[in-house]
Amino acid sequence: MSKEITNRSDDYSKWYIDIVKKAQLADNSAVRGCMVIKPYGYAIWENMRDQLDKMFKETGHVNAYFPIFVPKSLFEAEEKNAEGFAKECAVVTHYRLKNDPNRAGKLMVDPEAKLEEELIIRPTSEAIIWNTYRDWINSYRDLPLLINQWANVVRWEMRTRLFLRTAEFLWQEGHTAHATKDEALDEALKMQEVYATFAEEFMAMPVLRGVKSESERFAGADDTYTIEALMQDGKALQAGTSHFLGQNFAHAFDVKFSNEHNKQEYVWATSWGVSTRLIGGLIMTHSDDEGLVMPPKLAPVQVVIVPIPKPGEEIDDVANTIMNELKAEGVRVEYDTDKKKRPGFKFAEHELRGVPVRIGIGKRDLANGVVEVARRDTKEKQTQALDGVVDHVIALLDDIQNNLFNRALKFREEHTTVVDTFDEFKAVLDRDIPGFIVAHWDGTAETEQKIKELTKATIRCIPLDGVEEAGACVYSGKPSARRVIFAKAY
Amino acid sequence: MSKEITNRSDDYSKWYIDIVKKAQLADNSAVRGCMVIKPYGYAIWENMRDQLDKMFKETGHVNAYFPIFVPKSLFEAEEKNAEGFAKECAVVTHYRLKNDPNRAGKLMVDPEAKLEEELIIRPTSEAIIWNTYRDWINSYRDLPLLINQWANVVRWEMRTRLFLRTAEFLWQEGHTAHATKDEALDEALKMQEVYATFAEEFMAMPVLRGVKSESERFAGADDTYTIEALMQDGKALQAGTSHFLGQNFAHAFDVKFSNEHNKQEYVWATSWGVSTRLIGGLIMTHSDDEGLVMPPKLAPVQVVIVPIPKPGEEIDDVANTIMNELKAEGVRVEYDTDKKKRPGFKFAEHELRGVPVRIGIGKRDLANGVVEVARRDTKEKQTQALDGVVDHVIALLDDIQNNLFNRALKFREEHTTVVDTFDEFKAVLDRDIPGFIVAHWDGTAETEQKIKELTKATIRCIPLDGVEEAGACVYSGKPSARRVIFAKAY
Repeated sequence: MSKEITNRSDDYSKWYIDIVKKAQLADNSAVRGCMVIKPYGYAIWENMRDQLDKMFKETGHVNAYFPIFVPKSLFEAEEKNAEGFAKECAVVTHYRLKNDPNRAGKLMVDPEAKLEEELIIRPTSEAIIWNTYRDWINSYRDLPLLINQWANVVRWEMRTRLFLRTAEFLWQEGHTAHATKDEALDEALKMQEVYATFAEEFMAMPVLRGVKSESERFAGADDTYTIEALMQDGKALQAGTSHFLGQNFAHAFDVKFSNEHNKQEYVWATSWGVSTRLIGGLIMTHSDDEGLVMPPKLAPVQVVIVPIPKPGEEIDDVANTIMNELKAEGVRVEYDTDKKKRPGFKFAEHELRGVPVRIGIGKRDLANGVVEVARRDTKEKQTQALDGVVDHVIALLDDIQNNLFNRALKFREEHTTVVDTFDEFKAVLDRDIPGFIVAHWDGTAETEQKIKELTKATIRCIPLDGVEEAGACVYSGKPSARRVIFAKAY
Repeated sequence: MSKEITNRSDDYSKWYIDIVKKAQLADNSAVRGCMVIKPYGYAIWENMRDQLDKMFKETGHVNAYFPIFVPKSLFEAEEKNAEGFAKECAVVTHYRLKNDPNRAGKLMVDPEAKLEEELIIRPTSEAIIWNTYRDWINSYRDLPLLINQWANVVRWEMRTRLFLRTAEFLWQEGHTAHATKDEALDEALKMQEVYATFAEEFMAMPVLRGVKSESERFAGADDTYTIEALMQDGKALQAGTSHFLGQNFAHAFDVKFSNEHNKQEYVWATSWGVSTRLIGGLIMTHSDDEGLVMPPKLAPVQVVIVPIPKPGEEIDDVANTIMNELKAEGVRVEYDTDKKKRPGFKFAEHELRGVPVRIGIGKRDLANGVVEVARRDTKEKQTQALDGVVDHVIALLDDIQNNLFNRALKFREEHTTVVDTFDEFKAVLDRDIPGFIVAHWDGTAETEQKIKELTKATIRCIPLDGVEEAGACVYSGKPSARRVIFAKAY
């Protein structure tokens, strides 16, 4: 098979890019740092989006759409937020092109069409949204506002990698407004839990739930709740964040409401987002040296039927019957009727694409009333009686979903190390697959920064379910009240 | 009720904006010409999008996502397309902000972060997509490519109006690549028909199917197929277009394929799109002086149940039973349990939002085993036996959908005038509600331009099902082979 993939153990980064490109998920574009999401990759995003959207609506949220542009004067209103994103802003300065008088058939920016105020392409939408909320919120009766938007955002990153870090990416951003601090805090935690549930139950990707240290917080947040996953190279991936924004944006944009006693108060806020980065996490959690491995719940194609050696009346009949029965059960199934490719080639292709279950139908097997069922996760093959094969496949999809989660969880457990000294800390980071490090920290930004400089490891989160355990900081030796999670991260 | 709406007959433009704002569909934003689509308006767009997406997939298309940015050198490659959009392009020139040394806490564009090549925010994506297709297409086996994307685009329009014409809008754009001219032509016509079906069956908005005259064509197309609807003020709305692009983009971006005889040929193309403008068309087709009127198939809320005078155990039980039975049948239904608003106020509110069916449940009525069912389109109310009310409401939703279409069709027929002289032509345009004019045209751009200058009417389309009928041009008197459709347009 020509579409060979680099082995993880040879070059993990190249393995990742090979999968993205050869499984036809995404590609680089003519625009620096921007990707083209190809149909197969986009189909995964659609499945993610539909499921998340359902969960957002079940928790009382509605969708809306706000402009992609943020006037500079609004962008800079919340100073910390502005400072955090200023270095990576794409800026629109002009609104017209004209013919270049010096180059026939070419265009130039029309200097006379300069905007009075520059427009920032949203790197995140707090500013434009809170400027709008000022008009929408007058009284406690207008609260809470529970709004989400699906959108593209732009962050001009210098080092980009398909899905994981791109100049433009797709995401959803929830922006909620509340009358009380407690309600806003509850919301931020609730959405972190929605993300965790999605990651674990749909992506089959176990995550740690925690809160960020101050230096890792979202710019403009009072607290950032995060879900952190562990990739197969032992690096962490921040997979979703939910921010308690306090009254920072309400102050910056003067958003007040009159409470039940007719007194003016500032509004409390949250925001929360996940992005196409999740596809990168999905790939790096499950895939192997043969290609992508998709959890069935998000797989664009859950079952593929391959005729052996090629389509023909008898095989077609059986394939179509199985296909229709699976479809009736809501299974996404394809029958590969290509006549030019040989079965072995097709097998490799569907493995590369990560299709969870393959059913091979051969004439000889049919005579015996059996078909071959192969699962992508373990690559096991079984001969299966034709009678009952649909039920078997449906159960198998569940089994694969669970197996992928359990395998990833086991991997995480095997690559989570509790350490008490800085030597141990560094030794773990020197391993081929370092993973999560559970260590005491004195709670200061200085220590955090020093550890980062020395080891490139950062505090991924302070676990929410962490037990209180007095100890000594792994770096400074100063007292610590609880252990936190360190790792090198994407 | 405080949310009063201007009467159509007093000020049609103000009536339209009143509905958009007071039914909470959209609002202006801090960015010139950009709108905020509010949750209720966005819910309509979601219903449109989901239905169209289903129809695109049923006709073999898949979704993908291409960058929002088009490097200037790619943008200008197809000259006609570039020329057509150059005057309304938002241009990104810089990728960083920095602190303004002269104004504490303020930011400025960092002059050192100037892009080497300016990036155009896509006004349409042919350029970036065909530049990508060059890498995707080698052989006839790679064709056809049937790809759609849901995206935001920016066209820097000088005069904007919510939904109808905004600087940023949401849309879908299909971009297909074919081996033969016939196949591309078939595709363009097929998608025009998908749009027409969607407009008529889901929006209940009758449309004319036709082809554009050369001067009204999409920039870069060989032919533009259009669907044209008639609004209540007698102006036309171009509701969707499907373009046969010939080999223009293949030439501009050097996209060739080797055919079955191993010879290199240029690829044939189509593109087609509809946008949030459809929401403007929906409003102006059905709504009245009391507010929005929604066709049931796209209504975010199809049925609302109002307790009279307020919620209470007995009424709640009946309401919840009806609600659950309707939900089980797939109906989108709400029970308005607000205790502070009086029934009359709620009635007006749900009328303003255009909810197709209202069920009023009062204690006295319940004692008689009846409820009140009101339909939004005709404002008729009926006392209905509680027994069988669910079946009745489901049938009523169908009836409303059909009635809205038939009413709009009747309106169009009553406002379509066949004329043979230019005096008649002008007299029709002087009417309060001019509508479509069916007239002979000599086929020249000069005549078309002259008529536009004199009357502001343009050729909306040359009907696809128009009969060959020799005649004399309504303006020049020169020979004409068929009648075309004129109107003033949005």
